[in-house]
Amino acid sequence: MSEYTLRVIGRVESPLTDRAAAPLQADEGAPGAWLVFDERYAPALEGLSPGTDVLLLTWLDRADRDTLTVHPRGDATRPRAGVFTTRSPDRPNPIGLHEVRILAIAGTRVQVGNLEALDGTPILDVKPLLTPDR
Amino acid sequence: MSEYTLRVIGRVESPLTDRAAAPLQADEGAPGAWLVFDERYAPALEGLSPGTDVLLLTWLDRADRDTLTVHPRGDATRPRAGVFTTRSPDRPNPIGLHEVRILAIAGTRVQVGNLEALDGTPILDVKPLLTPDR
Repeated sequence: MSEYTLRVIGRVESPLTDRAAAPLQADEGAPGAWLVFDERYAPALEGLSPGTDVLLLTWLDRADRDTLTVHPRGDATRPRAGVFTTRSPDRPNPIGLHEVRILAIAGTRVQVGNLEALDGTPILDVKPLLTPDR
Repeated sequence: MSEYTLRVIGRVESPLTDRAAAPLQADEGAPGAWLVFDERYAPALEGLSPGTDVLLLTWLDRADRDTLTVHPRGDATRPRAGVFTTRSPDRPNPIGLHEVRILAIAGTRVQVGNLEALDGTPILDVKPLLTPDR
């Protein structure tokens, strides 16, 4: 099968540094964070504005890519399920999908609300939430 | 910057073969399709069931990765916008994000409803839509 190489377009700056302590979902107490984009991608950010909710795609670089089944939420009393039925970071392509609100923009630094990604996590993409007209 | 390599876990089988003719959004007349997974990923599919809506992540392998701004929806009368404010397939990491309904499952072949991805598009991941408990 063919392979494709991702481009790391930026990194997450977050107080979260420990996977074991990180919340599983953004609404479970995740802190705010900064998205620090490489300056070459400044044109791609044009038009983003504070107050907007966007989809952030990250590469969960500390995940185990050979895991195919998990106990949901790490609870060993629950039956194992295929990773494609869960949000486990451990999966063949550990792409993180986060709905975040943009709080501020300073050049190629973008401040966002609750984000359950660890400090240093590579950023892959930003997409609008709703696109009836784009 | 570091680079990461994607694993192609399957391919889309679709009557759509021409990017110019493909709808921009699934609700603009996209046809049904089959997701054909590599058999090694069968365990990761366990628990998926017909009637469920899921998020499908694909690699839009015919996209231009050097595009940073576009005319929204290809309309040259509209001002250019950063690709991160649009759903353009042309972007640094052309990851397609599709909300699809599972219609049927036959081994590692999964039939889904409206999907705006071209025939042969690599599949990267499947995630649940809502995950209050996983």
